[in-house]
Amino acid sequence: MSGLRRAAARAWGPPRALRAFSARPRDRIVETVGKLLQTKAQLETEEGKKNFILKTPKGTQDFSPKQMAIREKVFSTIINCFKRHGAEVIDTPVFELTETLTGKYGEDSKLIYDLKDQGGELLSLRYDLTVPFARYLAMNKITNIKRYHIAKVYRRDNPVMTRGRYREFYQCDFDIAGQCDPMIPDAECLKIIHEILSALQLGNFLIKVNDRRILSGVFAACGVPESKLQAACSTVDKLNKMTWEDVKNEMVGEKGLTPEAADLIGEYVKLHGGLDLVEQLLQDPRLSHNKLAGEGLRDMKLLFEYLMLFGIVDKISFDLSLARGLNYYTGVIYEAVLIQQQNDRVEELVDVGSVAGGGRYDGLVGMFDSKRQKVPCVGVSIGIERIFSIVNCKVKASKEKIRTTETQVLVAAPQKHFLAARLKLISELWDAGIKAEMLYRENPKLLKQLHYCEDTGIPLAAIIGEQELKDGVVKLRDVATRQEVDIPRQKLLEEIRRRLES
Amino acid sequence: MSGLRRAAARAWGPPRALRAFSARPRDRIVETVGKLLQTKAQLETEEGKKNFILKTPKGTQDFSPKQMAIREKVFSTIINCFKRHGAEVIDTPVFELTETLTGKYGEDSKLIYDLKDQGGELLSLRYDLTVPFARYLAMNKITNIKRYHIAKVYRRDNPVMTRGRYREFYQCDFDIAGQCDPMIPDAECLKIIHEILSALQLGNFLIKVNDRRILSGVFAACGVPESKLQAACSTVDKLNKMTWEDVKNEMVGEKGLTPEAADLIGEYVKLHGGLDLVEQLLQDPRLSHNKLAGEGLRDMKLLFEYLMLFGIVDKISFDLSLARGLNYYTGVIYEAVLIQQQNDRVEELVDVGSVAGGGRYDGLVGMFDSKRQKVPCVGVSIGIERIFSIVNCKVKASKEKIRTTETQVLVAAPQKHFLAARLKLISELWDAGIKAEMLYRENPKLLKQLHYCEDTGIPLAAIIGEQELKDGVVKLRDVATRQEVDIPRQKLLEEIRRRLES
Repeated sequence: MSGLRRAAARAWGPPRALRAFSARPRDRIVETVGKLLQTKAQLETEEGKKNFILKTPKGTQDFSPKQMAIREKVFSTIINCFKRHGAEVIDTPVFELTETLTGKYGEDSKLIYDLKDQGGELLSLRYDLTVPFARYLAMNKITNIKRYHIAKVYRRDNPVMTRGRYREFYQCDFDIAGQCDPMIPDAECLKIIHEILSALQLGNFLIKVNDRRILSGVFAACGVPESKLQAACSTVDKLNKMTWEDVKNEMVGEKGLTPEAADLIGEYVKLHGGLDLVEQLLQDPRLSHNKLAGEGLRDMKLLFEYLMLFGIVDKISFDLSLARGLNYYTGVIYEAVLIQQQNDRVEELVDVGSVAGGGRYDGLVGMFDSKRQKVPCVGVSIGIERIFSIVNCKVKASKEKIRTTETQVLVAAPQKHFLAARLKLISELWDAGIKAEMLYRENPKLLKQLHYCEDTGIPLAAIIGEQELKDGVVKLRDVATRQEVDIPRQKLLEEIRRRLES
Repeated sequence: MSGLRRAAARAWGPPRALRAFSARPRDRIVETVGKLLQTKAQLETEEGKKNFILKTPKGTQDFSPKQMAIREKVFSTIINCFKRHGAEVIDTPVFELTETLTGKYGEDSKLIYDLKDQGGELLSLRYDLTVPFARYLAMNKITNIKRYHIAKVYRRDNPVMTRGRYREFYQCDFDIAGQCDPMIPDAECLKIIHEILSALQLGNFLIKVNDRRILSGVFAACGVPESKLQAACSTVDKLNKMTWEDVKNEMVGEKGLTPEAADLIGEYVKLHGGLDLVEQLLQDPRLSHNKLAGEGLRDMKLLFEYLMLFGIVDKISFDLSLARGLNYYTGVIYEAVLIQQQNDRVEELVDVGSVAGGGRYDGLVGMFDSKRQKVPCVGVSIGIERIFSIVNCKVKASKEKIRTTETQVLVAAPQKHFLAARLKLISELWDAGIKAEMLYRENPKLLKQLHYCEDTGIPLAAIIGEQELKDGVVKLRDVATRQEVDIPRQKLLEEIRRRLES
């Protein structure tokens, strides 16, 4: 029995059924699965017709015009910042070959959405924008680029919609790929986070910074063997959700560290501060022997120097408890959180969690290259859904009225039988680039037309009736002040433009 | 044996294997399928590691910064037009419950991408933006909206990348939903097509118009039974790809019409013209008895009246061969094609096919409503991928240089050891909203920095070195003219803004 056939047998269970897989096990499986799924679909269609529920898939949402208006404002702030820093923009397909994503996300791989095997390639929805970016670089042999990418990604996670956790959500990524001198692009990524969070006026924030090399050094110095490094890292990453006691228990229980090692780690991951802490650790005898930790600390010092020149060092905290979950980071890592001044204490707004994060990943592109050619990368991802949920709350609280269209003029008529006149006039406005609407009725009531302006925030109404047509004028009404002036037809465009500018 | 178990038995084949499906056939199928697919995945991982190909999935593509720059220009032309007509914007998830899409696309349903059943809901990637729009309206009980939606849709079609046919592609949809007086929003949709195709300067174009009710009337008048109407319609739709002889053969052979009926249809679908043709058909004794055809023709007359007022009637052709494939249209339908003047003949640019299309679909929203409440809709979809392939060719031919960033200033240094000065200066520029870049090197050569400006089209270089630092100035260089002027540091922002404005 070949290895392949043994594998098939294990999966199927009863050995009797195995006789079906006589010649080519893979093809037989495909065929059988196809037939079974067809049957299942049939069963479900019958059940489904009775109780079809009108909804979007779990963990996803529609965006109404009002939500889109808020989104577009936030997006434009972010895009402006990315462009200010000279980024180009790329786009990649929403799905990738399943193999492209395999082995990139560690424990989180189980959250990847796979497409059904409908014959042809095996596909999965993208889980983030970083792996497709690395695939893009390797595939096109690009060794130097600064790009942003704003697109939806997909995770079969447990959705918590109220806290901005969805199965379909946007990521806004900015990355710098290429050989650079140490910490210059890394510092720019932190500057970008600072600029965006400041511009969005989300309140006070803090950017935690650490380095995977420093963490490795700490773990090594505390006696964690190399093989358990990644596991220890992902446990430390839970410190913002769990107490130290629970984290320690997981380290000792599940991850198999000694209690002594865990306690020693506990001493380190409590530390946070500024340049002084970097200097202090550079003197630490346990770390000074560790090559990686030394490199990380020296780079951290350089980073602080650059952030000082950028004038943003007061928002930066060198925090040894920051680990970040993903496998692919190799150097500096960072995460921004919103904080709240309560009495005398500074508190993290745990409700929203991190609103931006990123780090250096020098090995990812090489994983796609047949010659393992490395392209060093560093990047930042803005946690846009959490930011939306905060901005939405702020907008609701302020009772600010949000316009969902940009219409400047409503073309209206005060009497019946002026549809032709309205159509002719609105066509002139459109052709002149003026944003104009009319009601889709032959004979709408004037009051209804004016109410429409007020409801949707249209500032001007261009009214055309019997008298206006006779006099060769259009009555231009300022919706807010209710003032009306007759404007000669040939001066109308000019007058509308004048009013909209002021 | 129940019907369900019989179905399962048929799918599986050998009755012996059926013993496994004893209790709950659906659950057993799910379990078995899961195990089998796991085995298949295992087999394929083993195979795959050996021959992993670095590529995007079949029928999809990455967009490079240059392509994105062209795309963004085209998109902004289209979005400007939609906004000029007072449209709001919405967004919906990339996948829908499979049931939402079921029964909406007729023969094309086989092209829908399904997601793998990973436990939970059965999902499919959206096939167009119209069905999700109808689902959105019904779900939120919206009876009145004018919205646009620009997003990617997915079809497992045979890709022809050179002609702009992809498996993942953008649709740009504008739709008006709600009770309106006849043909007013319909006429606006045609005006929108006219505005967009004119603004994009793609060359001459023609908008073909027809009405599903007129087509029904013609088929009925030619003796096609009601039951074969849809089939006849989708055959007529192939007239732009097939000769009339082949279409006739399909009608008689596959669709079961009589040769006489087919010949009579042939006489009608040859017809195209303007208002005169509408008038002529209104007098046609065969059609005048048909209620639907009469309604359609009277509305077509009204439409021409409105299009006359919009001044676009010269680009409109009432064309009885236009059928459009999709099931859901109920009234007016239209399709825009690019045409070429060759010698004396006007010829369709068959290479690209239609660049915009749409129509009225008054029944679709009702399909989602439990009370079958109808919301009349009419809309237009811009065939953006075909437009891109044309614009791309034009750009290539013109050898126009396309900038992929908007950077205004490169911060440079002429000597070594001026990284700190550069970082400080660029930070000031960013904070003032100026788009600025620097090379990520401690000590880049001046020539390299200036070449970077020329390569990427950056118009200004702000140079800071020993002398400049001493004098409290920055040397501002115009990259095109190579002129350099010393500007006092406190006047730099002002001077840069002045230069960028002029």
